[in-house]
Amino acid sequence: MSSTIPIITFISDFGYQDEWAAICKGVIYRISPTANIVDICHNIPNFDIWKASFVLSSALPSFPVGVHLAVVDPGVGTQRRGIVIKADRGDLLVGPDNGLLIAAAERLGGIREVTLITNDRFWLKPVCPTFHARDIFAPVTAYLANGISPAEIGQTIAEESLAKSFWEKPRISGRTLECQVIDADKFGTLRFNVESSFLETQDLSLGETILMKVEFPSDLQRPHILAEVPFGRTFGDVRVGSPIMLVDSSGYLCLALNQGSAAQHFNLKRGDRLSLRL
Amino acid sequence: MSSTIPIITFISDFGYQDEWAAICKGVIYRISPTANIVDICHNIPNFDIWKASFVLSSALPSFPVGVHLAVVDPGVGTQRRGIVIKADRGDLLVGPDNGLLIAAAERLGGIREVTLITNDRFWLKPVCPTFHARDIFAPVTAYLANGISPAEIGQTIAEESLAKSFWEKPRISGRTLECQVIDADKFGTLRFNVESSFLETQDLSLGETILMKVEFPSDLQRPHILAEVPFGRTFGDVRVGSPIMLVDSSGYLCLALNQGSAAQHFNLKRGDRLSLRL
Amino acid sequence: MSSTIPIITFISDFGYQDEWAAICKGVIYRISPTANIVDICHNIPNFDIWKASFVLSSALPSFPVGVHLAVVDPGVGTQRRGIVIKADRGDLLVGPDNGLLIAAAERLGGIREVTLITNDRFWLKPVCPTFHARDIFAPVTAYLANGISPAEIGQTIAEESLAKSFWEKPRISGRTLECQVIDADKFGTLRFNVESSFLETQDLSLGETILMKVEFPSDLQRPHILAEVPFGRTFGDVRVGSPIMLVDSSGYLCLALNQGSAAQHFNLKRGDRLSLRL
Repeated sequence: MSSTIPIITFISDFGYQDEWAAICKGVIYRISPTANIVDICHNIPNFDIWKASFVLSSALPSFPVGVHLAVVDPGVGTQRRGIVIKADRGDLLVGPDNGLLIAAAERLGGIREVTLITNDRFWLKPVCPTFHARDIFAPVTAYLANGISPAEIGQTIAEESLAKSFWEKPRISGRTLECQVIDADKFGTLRFNVESSFLETQDLSLGETILMKVEFPSDLQRPHILAEVPFGRTFGDVRVGSPIMLVDSSGYLCLALNQGSAAQHFNLKRGDRLSLRL
Repeated sequence: MSSTIPIITFISDFGYQDEWAAICKGVIYRISPTANIVDICHNIPNFDIWKASFVLSSALPSFPVGVHLAVVDPGVGTQRRGIVIKADRGDLLVGPDNGLLIAAAERLGGIREVTLITNDRFWLKPVCPTFHARDIFAPVTAYLANGISPAEIGQTIAEESLAKSFWEKPRISGRTLECQVIDADKFGTLRFNVESSFLETQDLSLGETILMKVEFPSDLQRPHILAEVPFGRTFGDVRVGSPIMLVDSSGYLCLALNQGSAAQHFNLKRGDRLSLRL
Repeated sequence: MSSTIPIITFISDFGYQDEWAAICKGVIYRISPTANIVDICHNIPNFDIWKASFVLSSALPSFPVGVHLAVVDPGVGTQRRGIVIKADRGDLLVGPDNGLLIAAAERLGGIREVTLITNDRFWLKPVCPTFHARDIFAPVTAYLANGISPAEIGQTIAEESLAKSFWEKPRISGRTLECQVIDADKFGTLRFNVESSFLETQDLSLGETILMKVEFPSDLQRPHILAEVPFGRTFGDVRVGSPIMLVDSSGYLCLALNQGSAAQHFNLKRGDRLSLRL
């Protein structure tokens, strides 16, 4: 980092009840006393890599280039690897190789280089088998913020070897888009794996109607869905209780109800696949 | 701001589950990398302008002069205006024109000048209709912290044109004070719209008894209240379970129960009007 | 503090709903504008000195030398004293004399000196009887961070006069260790008052079996416990649902269930005494 105040963001499932997040910050300040650590969120549900992925990828594009520590790590203590991803924008993402960092790196311009964390010179020892965040990820983050290069942290590995991200890419054929629900927020708004940059390549105008079709081959209890939903700009474009599709503030296509819960109304949840006729 | 580390406080109803508060901080750091952003609280109940008003006005007098970002904004995307209020102490308060900023500005010496946020040169574009906090309020806050003057943000408007604050001024006639409950905290202590500066002008001594009278003209279900409550210095001045009136740490007259809930005991809630005979 | 950015940690039971924690930070920044305030945790259950003690003592060893503000203070407004403890490592701990600071000071090398907070020159006046955190502890913390010495804050007192910490020292006789449960975390893992430094003096190897014996002389409803538990390195050393003893990441001996709750399985809780045959 060239700035004199390196920015470090931090996301985890450590919660706000215990000392875990604070401990990692303490470790960072010992190594990088002028670091500016900014919490993204520590209330990610336990072990929910998918949710953390989504929150991280939504948040980071608004931040300055920095070092980003992400710890949702059900595999701590096993053979899962620790990695540093350099994104095209220049950011460094530090965390476990479990898919957590991929979506965010893609939103920061794409993956430029991946380093395996192998050089234990930058770790706190002895490494506690249940707290790699404190003993490996936090100190590596701090040294990177101090200007140590990823090459000193370990060896470069192929991007292809990474654990995959959790959601799929959408597929388009003609005017039919096969996509997936990747998040349901606390208002019940459903976000799809479809980004605004993709929509801009399609000939879709405000006010047009999108035909949504959902089948549940593996769950015979849930009835099929067939619905016509207008594409709009903001919730208030439709009557209270009516559904609308729009691009949310993070650039994802989403399905909302004006002052209601789309998740409840359509009985849809994260992971569900659907097809949209644009 | 003359200091090299401009202080920015931040209050919202964004909660700690999602990325919204972090995103606003990221935007601020991109514009003002050395800013010191201090969270007041992001757990304000959704859209509860009144509670946010109270928390903000209680907190800010303890802070250095700074720029204060406040976002509880049920009217986002509608025609409600964005404003900057300059307080007499020198602080700048940034947020929606919905009454949120008034009480705090008054506690910082009063309103010196109001600016309408109209100059889109300082906004992130395109402005998302559902996230003015990110695209308008956060960047304006950051530029103000950098020393840009309110005059560059937009045009001055009359204080009289502002949306009003939520609680009334108390009225005194003889020894009878007509006032209102403006907050009930998590212990059930009720705060009134009566400030210590006002009480000092009255001839009220510790140990005196205040006659409290409450009628509910619009709610015939709730019985009238007539109670004598001692005016004291701290909860422990009365027996456990007994009521007391005192000036709380924020300078508001309040009604408490020693180790109990005054809200429950008297069946009173925010907004209720009462008269006190001093 | 010799650094140009003095680090101040802050723990309390103020929660994240109200303005209390923010107010203390505002006070500190007014006195020490370049301070780096790091939250340990503000979600300590109301008045739970024991839990705060544990969290603080677990967190501080990971931090740089600094000034540490701790406020869990059921005795505010009574005659309980305010103190500054200087730890051997050089840290200064500020808070009420109710046992809260002892365990942390011991983890920072031990208590070197105790100062009674008596010099009101460093307080905010008038001191509110219900908010010493704002009017006494926060400003004293800030002045200490600015380099004011404890000697200016008040007079030295004997360590022996301090209110005692809440948990006992373990007692060893032969191979039998009498100890106590000092924390149950959100996973149901039980921590004992036995530190790794002590275990290293014992001849205990990984894989060995520890005989755990618990009697409840004052609670005839709870049956005695007699169990053999292996001493291991990490949860995964035993089958899912099986108990294990290990040294946790904070250096305390603990009793866990692999992917389960030891607290529930053994019906044990904080404060319980037990004997272990090593």
